[in-house]
Amino acid sequence: MQLFFQPDLSENHCWLTEEESRHCVKVLRKREGEAIVVTDGCGFFYDCIITKANTQKCEFKIQEKRAEPKKLFRIHLAIAPTKNPDRLEWLVEKATELGVDEITLIDGDHSERSFIKTERLLKVAISAMKQSQKATLPIINPLKKFSSILDYQADQKFIAYVDHSNPKHLLHEAIKEKSYLICIGPEGDFSQAELASAIGAGFVKVSLGDSRLRTETAGMAACCLLNAIQVSV
Amino acid sequence: MQLFFQPDLSENHCWLTEEESRHCVKVLRKREGEAIVVTDGCGFFYDCIITKANTQKCEFKIQEKRAEPKKLFRIHLAIAPTKNPDRLEWLVEKATELGVDEITLIDGDHSERSFIKTERLLKVAISAMKQSQKATLPIINPLKKFSSILDYQADQKFIAYVDHSNPKHLLHEAIKEKSYLICIGPEGDFSQAELASAIGAGFVKVSLGDSRLRTETAGMAACCLLNAIQVSV
Repeated sequence: MQLFFQPDLSENHCWLTEEESRHCVKVLRKREGEAIVVTDGCGFFYDCIITKANTQKCEFKIQEKRAEPKKLFRIHLAIAPTKNPDRLEWLVEKATELGVDEITLIDGDHSERSFIKTERLLKVAISAMKQSQKATLPIINPLKKFSSILDYQADQKFIAYVDHSNPKHLLHEAIKEKSYLICIGPEGDFSQAELASAIGAGFVKVSLGDSRLRTETAGMAACCLLNAIQVSV
Repeated sequence: MQLFFQPDLSENHCWLTEEESRHCVKVLRKREGEAIVVTDGCGFFYDCIITKANTQKCEFKIQEKRAEPKKLFRIHLAIAPTKNPDRLEWLVEKATELGVDEITLIDGDHSERSFIKTERLLKVAISAMKQSQKATLPIINPLKKFSSILDYQADQKFIAYVDHSNPKHLLHEAIKEKSYLICIGPEGDFSQAELASAIGAGFVKVSLGDSRLRTETAGMAACCLLNAIQVSV
């Protein structure tokens, strides 16, 4: 099933964007009367029939609106951007596939980048959402000072920190069906001051295992583990 | 700590390859008398002192040989190569970071590629091993027929299969401190015949969760979960 994205979809706004129209009509050669599935990125799938197969503005009518199955947990990943932009894009793709709900980029003491274009990351997330047949587009926030991330709300707040004396693994600290906020540091990790302020704000310091992981790998591992614990034995 | 790789290291063979010599002496400007750490990729680190800082053949003497901490589990990932070679390289990098021991590429019924250059994948694995400060280079096997993969030995053999009626999640099926073989299929998944033959050969069909994952994401998720279960509560 090929999924199309139209964030402004409503009863009165039943057409694809120019880019999606071109893909639908020109690349996939969809014609009037054919069925397509469109998502609004806000949790809904729409079964539609093409009414005008125009390569610039493909129009359709909605047959049925279906809600995505409700998830009982929420993952907010706050992560320091990698120096290499490709690695950050990979992370956004993989985290989206693994069902992340929100990504916030951290501007911290050891940050390697002080400006990030989130437009490109949003494109990657849209593509990954469509590819993995989801109807929820993750929120991607621009760079935020580490101190302001400490104010975010969640049932469980974690800070991943490379510390071989720390026996608390995320897998054992996270409780299923909660909202989670997990912070992943840059290559040089969080500063001691950042770690102390997070712990002061109620964050729990967790490990992601003995392997030394790159930032983006740690981000993906966190999403993977928080997903896995939702499954009952 | 910058780690160098010399697969043929021994008492009588104490120099870096041309590529590593250039990196050590030309790029990092290491000089005679400076300390470096070299790995043989077979589980050992060597603390060394440079005796000849030559950009083509950097010589050193071994001060101490240290074994990497022993792992009590072994991960063999058998995976269908992705159509896009970048995605396969990315998987090799991430699996190496996450401590995979062996990767075998599957030539199966729905395979998208029938030839793979493993040289490039080996380079990626070497780089990831050095980056993540490991001393064990994963074995990377060329494409093998799916039927021959069924003969590999392991304490626990799994086949990941997208089947929403399958309640067995890898996280709950895998037992810690075992050797694992896990098979991940191509985009079109394994054929019914392949699945049946694997089950006949003692493989357990497992799920990696409800998300529809790309092949390389599934491979990474499997390594991540098999690592995580080793940690005691």
